[in-house]
Amino acid sequence: MTEGHVNSNVVVVSADDISEYLRFAQTLVRQVGKELLSRFRTDLVVDDKSAGHGFDPVTDVDKKVERLMRDAITRQYPEHGIVGEEYGDHPGNGLTWVIDPIDGTRAFMTGMLHWGSLLGLSDGLRPIIGTMYQPFVDELFWGIPREAGYLHGTKQSTICTRQCGALADAVMGTTGPEFYRQTQELEGLKRLRDRVLFTRFGGDCYVFAMVAMGQLDIGLEASLKPCDIQPMIPIIEGAGGIVTTWEGGDASQGGRVIAAGDPHIHAKAVEILQGESV
Amino acid sequence: MTEGHVNSNVVVVSADDISEYLRFAQTLVRQVGKELLSRFRTDLVVDDKSAGHGFDPVTDVDKKVERLMRDAITRQYPEHGIVGEEYGDHPGNGLTWVIDPIDGTRAFMTGMLHWGSLLGLSDGLRPIIGTMYQPFVDELFWGIPREAGYLHGTKQSTICTRQCGALADAVMGTTGPEFYRQTQELEGLKRLRDRVLFTRFGGDCYVFAMVAMGQLDIGLEASLKPCDIQPMIPIIEGAGGIVTTWEGGDASQGGRVIAAGDPHIHAKAVEILQGESV
Repeated sequence: MTEGHVNSNVVVVSADDISEYLRFAQTLVRQVGKELLSRFRTDLVVDDKSAGHGFDPVTDVDKKVERLMRDAITRQYPEHGIVGEEYGDHPGNGLTWVIDPIDGTRAFMTGMLHWGSLLGLSDGLRPIIGTMYQPFVDELFWGIPREAGYLHGTKQSTICTRQCGALADAVMGTTGPEFYRQTQELEGLKRLRDRVLFTRFGGDCYVFAMVAMGQLDIGLEASLKPCDIQPMIPIIEGAGGIVTTWEGGDASQGGRVIAAGDPHIHAKAVEILQGESV
Repeated sequence: MTEGHVNSNVVVVSADDISEYLRFAQTLVRQVGKELLSRFRTDLVVDDKSAGHGFDPVTDVDKKVERLMRDAITRQYPEHGIVGEEYGDHPGNGLTWVIDPIDGTRAFMTGMLHWGSLLGLSDGLRPIIGTMYQPFVDELFWGIPREAGYLHGTKQSTICTRQCGALADAVMGTTGPEFYRQTQELEGLKRLRDRVLFTRFGGDCYVFAMVAMGQLDIGLEASLKPCDIQPMIPIIEGAGGIVTTWEGGDASQGGRVIAAGDPHIHAKAVEILQGESV
């Protein structure tokens, strides 16, 4: 169902390259955790970048952490491109690092636990490496093609999604109804909520991490930016899951995204989001 | 604004008693954390106790942990009463322990982080000791009259709520819209959401813990049981906050509950919940 799109800058990456880039990402995303930890549950400088449309917070910590990550990437891989949540796009040789310094800024601002730093790498066509780190809980999730893993303290494991017999048994996660801004999005959310066992609100990147870990069956969002989802795609896919737009297409540009652990549940959910009664 | 109610079994408790009971509660709530941890993110046996009205999950872990807590209380204080989420009421001498083995069972079931074990003590009139423990993150919140504290690993601190200049600057937390089951409850939630800076969904006991910690300004819920809120009341009040029903009355029987860190914000929010335009 995925719509591919041709990009002349696709870079062929070897298995050794993947290993090297994954180690770099895992190290960097944990390094900046120290900065996040030192500011968690302290007074923050919060700006609103919504330009009057609602409230879209960014803290001084988001900016500092993205700057630390960009500087480290530029030192190590000066030829690579960088896309970041706060400081925009820096083109490169086709390999592009994607940074969300704090996915879940609202959670971070309110002392809650469901947030993380995201760092991914795209080969010019699609994300091939993804990492997510929550320093307060010391949880690292990572993914590459055909593999995903988890590191909690010193405890390492691979992770995989779970099968789910029927949509009526599926458990769904989403961050909040306020991110479903258009009527058709709210209607899609309602249709799917009416069909699953229950829906858990709150979560940001943890929603997708829990799909990858086989704890949630569906992760649904309607207002993602590319930085929010690209680093999560290899984690979900590496664990055996599927992540697409609500129409079943490429999710890497964000917007309306659905992730599922079981391909049958994914197919049914996409039909329901499109208004069909399955 | 609080409505007191007279109870002939009110027990006078000394400061030394409070210290002893608090230590007992802190120790017990952490002890059962080992059982919770051993089952977190594993296969669970889930029953639905809703009797056909929606979905109200209880796991084998909820039952086991409540049983462990009841047994420990009965051994230590055979004359005390016990009220629990899963195994009902055991009357005693007026001092009554209140247990919620897993507050946030849906979060626990889905691998998320916002859940905790709650254990409180009532003197027959009101809750005087409260504890909340999340073993995966190793966070303990506690409260007694005029004091509340926090223990994370070996890091101890007292906690207090924050002042908030205006309702428009307030940040609110609530677990999910699905727990606002009546039209007037949904309308109350909407009125308040429209007046605050933003509302964070997802949280259960963490919503109230973050009010106590001065991270959230308002915690709002509509479908609480006595076990969900009684152990949190001393934590919120001990940190300087206020917790009442939506009408400003005693919150210890649950139902529609509002907690706030700043008394002015609490008063304004209660007026708005009652349909007045402040």
